[in-house]
Amino acid sequence: MKHIYSNAIGTFVFDEKFNVIDKSLFKDVSRLSELEKLELISEEKKFLEKYSGADVIGFKEQIKAISDENTLNKLNPFFDKNKKAIRELVISQTKKSIRESVTDDLLIIQTIGSIDETTKIINMMYRRLNDWYSYHNPEFSAEDIEINRFCELILSKDKKNLLRELKVSDTMGKDLSKRDLSSIFLLAKEILELFKLIEKEEKYLTEMMSKICPNLLDLAGHVIGARLMKHAGSLKNLADVPSSTVQLYGAEKALFRHMRSGSKCPKHGLIIAHDFVAGAINKGKAARQLADKISLAVKVDVFGGKKDYGKFLLKKLIKNKGK
Amino acid sequence: MKHIYSNAIGTFVFDEKFNVIDKSLFKDVSRLSELEKLELISEEKKFLEKYSGADVIGFKEQIKAISDENTLNKLNPFFDKNKKAIRELVISQTKKSIRESVTDDLLIIQTIGSIDETTKIINMMYRRLNDWYSYHNPEFSAEDIEINRFCELILSKDKKNLLRELKVSDTMGKDLSKRDLSSIFLLAKEILELFKLIEKEEKYLTEMMSKICPNLLDLAGHVIGARLMKHAGSLKNLADVPSSTVQLYGAEKALFRHMRSGSKCPKHGLIIAHDFVAGAINKGKAARQLADKISLAVKVDVFGGKKDYGKFLLKKLIKNKGK
Repeated sequence: MKHIYSNAIGTFVFDEKFNVIDKSLFKDVSRLSELEKLELISEEKKFLEKYSGADVIGFKEQIKAISDENTLNKLNPFFDKNKKAIRELVISQTKKSIRESVTDDLLIIQTIGSIDETTKIINMMYRRLNDWYSYHNPEFSAEDIEINRFCELILSKDKKNLLRELKVSDTMGKDLSKRDLSSIFLLAKEILELFKLIEKEEKYLTEMMSKICPNLLDLAGHVIGARLMKHAGSLKNLADVPSSTVQLYGAEKALFRHMRSGSKCPKHGLIIAHDFVAGAINKGKAARQLADKISLAVKVDVFGGKKDYGKFLLKKLIKNKGK
Repeated sequence: MKHIYSNAIGTFVFDEKFNVIDKSLFKDVSRLSELEKLELISEEKKFLEKYSGADVIGFKEQIKAISDENTLNKLNPFFDKNKKAIRELVISQTKKSIRESVTDDLLIIQTIGSIDETTKIINMMYRRLNDWYSYHNPEFSAEDIEINRFCELILSKDKKNLLRELKVSDTMGKDLSKRDLSSIFLLAKEILELFKLIEKEEKYLTEMMSKICPNLLDLAGHVIGARLMKHAGSLKNLADVPSSTVQLYGAEKALFRHMRSGSKCPKHGLIIAHDFVAGAINKGKAARQLADKISLAVKVDVFGGKKDYGKFLLKKLIKNKGK
């Protein structure tokens, strides 16, 4: 009866009394940290084939064997001799796999996270700006104009001009001093800066996505595509889930409420923001069709298919709209 | 029996059958909107003195009188004639009082609100930056350095230099491309911008406070002083509350828990951030002493006392420290 025992520096074969009868070290132990150069797998395979009848000691048995004093004494010379090398090897292996775990997916997910967060921040700052500026000029509130347009206008025109355009003669606002206003305008300038930040990040996001998932990009757009990836955790995960899951990503709350209390089942999650769904009369059907195509496109991206399949799918989708 | 009836355009005297027997219009009705130029009060007083024996119709009676058809018919000519003027007058009066309600207090409260909000935003963005940058250089994490220092360092030095200073040879980080890094650095630059914003806003805050509450400023500092004002709603409110309230502002949750369930009573709220309290051994006592002096200082500010009383109080406080 032979036992095979593997650890980070090599594989050892023992007889039933745990004497080492053969070993295959992973090449030069002193050079273990330069792992890339070692052909681990092929060496290992050959060695294991040689002892194919032997009993491979699993993790539990290894622990048990090591706990036994006799066994330990026999194994100790190997451990002692190579302790430092093993430690270094394990650390550098871990570092390498951490290094390799950083994929373009993660960068995309961080970018869309940052974009969504910055949008929230803009809304937060804008609420304060609107409050603060309304002491000066409450008639010019930004209810029907875009936030960035509002900031630009209050920065570029003074109160009189803005009121003249609104045809308001009697204002409720106090005429604040230049110093007071300059402090309010700091906030408006900051908001415009944040808009620029989002713009740049969206550009980067589009670049990244056209590199790793051009079909998803063409079909879903950069924002929705990236949000779906963020929701799934990675592009591969997104390719793994069925299209009905893609359809409901972002509607988990409503879905679980439906499952628990029998309320209506949600028909769309994140993808409601897509023009194809938002503009459809039957939104549930449109969401199902789009999710179906997104699922296809992502699979093509992950398994390295054609780069213009997304465009083709989108055309097909629009052609069959409402059918 | 005479009745006196006042509305926005003047005061009218009626006999018991609600025939108008005298009236005092507030000067030229057509110029009513230029309210500032009219000396309302003195005119009004003289007229009322003349009819000092008459029955002044209160709000309820006015409603009742107007509901009565006969009375209404007699009053109507007055209303009809001046309807537009009344409307305009009321609106312009309201606008005026809204305009006058904007005080420096409000600007201070908005400023400290914005500063605290921006600090929160910085923390939010920084969490993402740290996450994102750690793909590239996880060894250089910002656990023991200030956020702005962290941003400056990653912007000014490259990975190699940073790692050399940390004496790390084997990094877990993936070498990101320049393009990837530039997107991360956008966030770092934005955070530094926000720090500048806070700096400018704090300068403005100090200016404003040295104008309307120099004693509070000297004693509590601009941030704590403004936070107390924000909590109270205005400088006047802050002067109205007892010093024990000032001591516990910001600790309401703990206070109500104490009152409800008998847990320990909180000893300090917002003012814990003050050096005098934070650095004291007996924090409860220090908080009581400081709150006491703050209460005094605010009263002096509101009722227009000496401008260097705050400094005097602070000196006294420090002299008697721990006693």
